[in-house]
Amino acid sequence: MDFHVMTLFPDMIMQGLSDSVIGRAVRKETIGLHAVNIRDYSHDKHKHVDDYPYGGGAGMVMQPEPIFECYQDIVARMDKKPRVIYMTPQGRVFNQEIAEELSKEESLIFLCGHYEGIDERVLDEIVTDHLSIGDYVLTGGELPAMVMIDTIARLVPGVLNNSESAEYDSFQDGLLEYPQYTRPEIWHDKQVPEVLLSGHHGNIEKWRRQQSLKRTFERRPELLEQEEVQANLTKKDREYLDALENLEEE
Amino acid sequence: MDFHVMTLFPDMIMQGLSDSVIGRAVRKETIGLHAVNIRDYSHDKHKHVDDYPYGGGAGMVMQPEPIFECYQDIVARMDKKPRVIYMTPQGRVFNQEIAEELSKEESLIFLCGHYEGIDERVLDEIVTDHLSIGDYVLTGGELPAMVMIDTIARLVPGVLNNSESAEYDSFQDGLLEYPQYTRPEIWHDKQVPEVLLSGHHGNIEKWRRQQSLKRTFERRPELLEQEEVQANLTKKDREYLDALENLEEE
Repeated sequence: MDFHVMTLFPDMIMQGLSDSVIGRAVRKETIGLHAVNIRDYSHDKHKHVDDYPYGGGAGMVMQPEPIFECYQDIVARMDKKPRVIYMTPQGRVFNQEIAEELSKEESLIFLCGHYEGIDERVLDEIVTDHLSIGDYVLTGGELPAMVMIDTIARLVPGVLNNSESAEYDSFQDGLLEYPQYTRPEIWHDKQVPEVLLSGHHGNIEKWRRQQSLKRTFERRPELLEQEEVQANLTKKDREYLDALENLEEE
Repeated sequence: MDFHVMTLFPDMIMQGLSDSVIGRAVRKETIGLHAVNIRDYSHDKHKHVDDYPYGGGAGMVMQPEPIFECYQDIVARMDKKPRVIYMTPQGRVFNQEIAEELSKEESLIFLCGHYEGIDERVLDEIVTDHLSIGDYVLTGGELPAMVMIDTIARLVPGVLNNSESAEYDSFQDGLLEYPQYTRPEIWHDKQVPEVLLSGHHGNIEKWRRQQSLKRTFERRPELLEQEEVQANLTKKDREYLDALENLEEE
């Protein structure tokens, strides 16, 4: 799968994704990551890509032509036109489900705007998806693009190794993670929970499941209402949740 | 204001935030940005900072001691203990309101975990806030930390210049942005809306306000229900929204 990013800050994208799992996948060529500088398509001798907004107002607006030529250059070598994602607070809120859908594409293009905005006409012409990573105001589209690429790339076969996939799957049942402990056994007078040292797999599984249920109940109760979560709850899970509820009412 | 990031990938943080508005504020020393490598606090000759989870399971867990010593080193020179933010899907979902609250702190520490997790005991001991940037699975806490730092830093006085602040304020009334246009006047046979070329400020303001209302109504109708948005709606705004609703019912 190939990720193309249209940006004014290509180094930020390449360096920000060079470490860890995504960097490893790029080096192994499991995925491709290409940051293209919109400024290279400026027709201006000073390499400007923005101009004053029609109708007045603060700030500058990115011009349509450099973005369009940058886009054309990216798609020139492709058989079919890929989806083009524009990161904007106006978009649908990105989530794991959207990431799964996008991870099935052969190529994706991300268009990073800056606060002042982009000429509406080029957005109309090339953008297929308006997405937001959350309800907060960022300087530009670069960080949201990196967040989406990280989330999507993890779902591409071969990007995660076996043990990483196993962990990932355990997260996918929609409950929060149980607490984790590693060496030393006693740290700052705090002992690792006895059950984890017992070697009794049944009890460990039971404890971890209950911890996941308890945390989800306490911190993100709305997650328990989701259909996929409900479908995976066993009779014992329900009994435990009922017990937690009764405890709270007392 | 000072941002401290405890991470295994300090270069990712420093380079990912070096461009644009935040990089400029760091160079002007309006804000401080310090990425500290947790690995520097390893006691292991191979510089390991993780170990197998007690109770078994896939992946490795970050050990408490290197993180604790890294934390102690950061706070050693401070008068009071700062808030420590741990990025986790288990946390409260980050938003603009939380960003505003955090922007009033003198210092903040961000602790970046990796997928496998961190020993629970050190989280209990140092973390004050569990925050999530959204419901999607990322490789580590670095990108979420960068997203939060960008959002928070923009709210620190002196980080944005006057024209940037003005744009930002216009966004703050809770409606989506109106479309923007810049030169050329005709691009790909598409003309900039006549009203924006008219020079008639009253009409331009009216058109932009209606476009903001229309977009919010069409794309993020739930935003219109928020108290702060409701409080800022004029009688004319309400009439226009009523007209949009009637149009839809027809």
